Amino acid sequence: MSVEAPLAVAGYFAGRPISLITFLIIPLAMKRIGIADTTFARVDMARAAISVIKNEASAEIIRYTVPGIKDLPVAAKKLMDEEKCDIVMALGMPGPADKDKMCAHEASTGLIAAQLMTNRHIIEVFVHEDEAPDERTLASLAKRRTEEHALNAVRLLYHPEMLTRLAGTGQRQGYEDAGPIESSSGGHLGH
Amino acid sequence: MSVEAPLAVAGYFAGRPISLITFLIIPLAMKRIGIADTTFARVDMARAAISVIKNEASAEIIRYTVPGIKDLPVAAKKLMDEEKCDIVMALGMPGPADKDKMCAHEASTGLIAAQLMTNRHIIEVFVHEDEAPDERTLASLAKRRTEEHALNAVRLLYHPEMLTRLAGTGQRQGYEDAGPIESSSGGHLGH
Amino acid sequence: MSVEAPLAVAGYFAGRPISLITFLIIPLAMKRIGIADTTFARVDMARAAISVIKNEASAEIIRYTVPGIKDLPVAAKKLMDEEKCDIVMALGMPGPADKDKMCAHEASTGLIAAQLMTNRHIIEVFVHEDEAPDERTLASLAKRRTEEHALNAVRLLYHPEMLTRLAGTGQRQGYEDAGPIESSSGGHLGH
Amino acid sequence: MSVEAPLAVAGYFAGRPISLITFLIIPLAMKRIGIADTTFARVDMARAAISVIKNEASAEIIRYTVPGIKDLPVAAKKLMDEEKCDIVMALGMPGPADKDKMCAHEASTGLIAAQLMTNRHIIEVFVHEDEAPDERTLASLAKRRTEEHALNAVRLLYHPEMLTRLAGTGQRQGYEDAGPIESSSGGHLGH
Amino acid sequence: MSVEAPLAVAGYFAGRPISLITFLIIPLAMKRIGIADTTFARVDMARAAISVIKNEASAEIIRYTVPGIKDLPVAAKKLMDEEKCDIVMALGMPGPADKDKMCAHEASTGLIAAQLMTNRHIIEVFVHEDEAPDERTLASLAKRRTEEHALNAVRLLYHPEMLTRLAGTGQRQGYEDAGPIESSSGGHLGH
Repeated sequence: MSVEAPLAVAGYFAGRPISLITFLIIPLAMKRIGIADTTFARVDMARAAISVIKNEASAEIIRYTVPGIKDLPVAAKKLMDEEKCDIVMALGMPGPADKDKMCAHEASTGLIAAQLMTNRHIIEVFVHEDEAPDERTLASLAKRRTEEHALNAVRLLYHPEMLTRLAGTGQRQGYEDAGPIESSSGGHLGH
Repeated sequence: MSVEAPLAVAGYFAGRPISLITFLIIPLAMKRIGIADTTFARVDMARAAISVIKNEASAEIIRYTVPGIKDLPVAAKKLMDEEKCDIVMALGMPGPADKDKMCAHEASTGLIAAQLMTNRHIIEVFVHEDEAPDERTLASLAKRRTEEHALNAVRLLYHPEMLTRLAGTGQRQGYEDAGPIESSSGGHLGH
Repeated sequence: MSVEAPLAVAGYFAGRPISLITFLIIPLAMKRIGIADTTFARVDMARAAISVIKNEASAEIIRYTVPGIKDLPVAAKKLMDEEKCDIVMALGMPGPADKDKMCAHEASTGLIAAQLMTNRHIIEVFVHEDEAPDERTLASLAKRRTEEHALNAVRLLYHPEMLTRLAGTGQRQGYEDAGPIESSSGGHLGH
Repeated sequence: MSVEAPLAVAGYFAGRPISLITFLIIPLAMKRIGIADTTFARVDMARAAISVIKNEASAEIIRYTVPGIKDLPVAAKKLMDEEKCDIVMALGMPGPADKDKMCAHEASTGLIAAQLMTNRHIIEVFVHEDEAPDERTLASLAKRRTEEHALNAVRLLYHPEMLTRLAGTGQRQGYEDAGPIESSSGGHLGH
Repeated sequence: MSVEAPLAVAGYFAGRPISLITFLIIPLAMKRIGIADTTFARVDMARAAISVIKNEASAEIIRYTVPGIKDLPVAAKKLMDEEKCDIVMALGMPGPADKDKMCAHEASTGLIAAQLMTNRHIIEVFVHEDEAPDERTLASLAKRRTEEHALNAVRLLYHPEMLTRLAGTGQRQGYEDAGPIESSSGGHLGH
């Protein structure tokens, strides 16, 4: 796992040289965001995620690449348990076959279990190969969905109140938002 | 997470000023209800839930909004482990596609696991986008089902005996109740 | 949760008044059977279960009613962890739609997990709404299956050797038994 | 649960009477094999398993019968946690309907979870009612598959190297073995 | 389980005889790779895996053969908990029927759970019998996929940065790589 840390804090602080202890404490206070991605995916989704996170927050980013989406649950859990990440993004591109759908289901189930074991969020960003009519559109979709979910990760970590403001408004990632809908006044549903 | 607390108890009690310690003990005795909802949903289901709970009980309500239904299991677990909620409502509106059904299944499985890990109830309120013929009816259904399940949450927490009185009576949430059925006297089922 | 306890043991035992301590020890030695049921079901299955158990055994019965079958796993686990039940019956009537089948699957998975976490049995009694041609037959089926499984619960708790005597005999609950089958003497199965 | 123990070791050993302590240590060193079966099955599969195990090994056999296959996971776990079994065979005959297939899936998932919680093997022997054209063939299949898997259980416990010798050779239980296949020398698979 | 250890380090080191303690410490520092395979598979996939690992790394290899893929999760977990493996490869060949697909799904779910319980990777290599038109091609596919995933296991353990270099490049195991795709510049996806 490679750590993309922001410029190390060094030199003098308040007129006094920063000791080693001070130096060690500062990075610990900084939030850590894990990025787990795959060699199976056909788009470098992690690059899109890292770019958004660097724009939006001053966090340490730890990236961890595994072969396929079924390797993501333990990768995400290791990022939390061993690399002390506060949140993880799990990026993958399942294939179009039935077998691939099943793989995605198994990976998702594992990602949810990993969250329950750590009490921390894993933002799953899966782009299915059959979601777009051609490769260029698929790549655009993958990039855009990853970017929008990177924003969600930052909000969960730093600005949860921003998500509450968007609650029930039909947000979509990678597509246009569906938007909110209004209930009819006197509707009554039969059985 | 934002806490919607009832009016703070302050001033004098039994002719004596309430000390800080007394003040801290009182809120602990009050039940805490978590509301986990999503930005994906197209209806502000949490508003409907909060409104019913405020009418029915004097509880602290802690709301936590996440992007989608797959983020609800860990959100609910955090509400219980970190915010000490006694019960949680998990509100979501899965889309109509096969992939969305699978997401709902994964979320439900996670919500059940979170309950088993905490020994506390999570009332799942999912409204599927294909449950209603048009958007207005869908919104009404979402509002009504959430309200009726908010009542269930209050009953589980404060009046479990009211649920036992309704046992086996075909209660439905969002639709008309199905009602109880009677067994035939001398029926005999072949193999 | 309401406890249906047998007549309290009080007064004199062996010519000496029963002390509080004795009184507390006796109920602890008595087996406790939990009944978890739902308001969604259209038949009061718990009544059928309780009636059989009272006939067959001298156990404390603790009943706990929840809204639907997905609330049963944690209800059963609470009956075991908090109410110290030795066994639990989980009673429910899933609807006929695909979504209902999925709910039943999720509930069953959770019930099995709850058993593995507690090392105690949960006898699941689910009656699917599409198992019978009409409501009266459905209600009869629900009642009969519950009664036969209540007998299974009593056997597991008090007479496990009775189940071993019935092993491999094609027992069915709610329907006629399928019965045992005999193998052919010289059969040989191709690939 | 009934224990079918081999003849108790008693009397004199090396010219000295065997003390109680010696007597207690010897059975502990003996392997314990659990057999979990059901009253739902239409064939006494446990009998077939016990017969093979007695021929092949000098183990204590503990049998535990439950109503159906969904009760097998906790039965197997109890056999390991409470009866200290070193391995368990879980025997069942799922019915032919879709609902039965789902039951089998839930039971299998639970059996795998029980193994992960105990770090011991559970050999699942399930015979589906629609695997054979008639009842006699079905019963033969059930008997034969159970016998061959009983051999597997003995090998896992006493002779794991025998399984490694058979690795990749297409072994089947209840049917003829599929056998090994050879790779083509210069094959190349397109995408 | 059989250990295929590299040549034992013995004799003199830096002019002094290597003591027993030194001898015991050195192998502990060496990485341990577990190989779990099945007698059900029709190809000796473990041989292909071991050959690649021996070429690429100086690790101890512990092999453990079980009957079928549903036995792989606990086998992999035992390899990690009892044999202290740092990573495990789980090799299997599910059959072509619906029932076999379900077995593979259950095994995969268990393998992911085992990883989350141990925080170590299990590289699943499953080759479905219906992935190739004939037996020779199937055997070639099994061999090639196993070899490529053995390389992935070595990379995860020794050279994780090599996987990050391949992130998002559409790697496939057993087939030709799919390769990376480029996003269109100004694409915009409707809802």
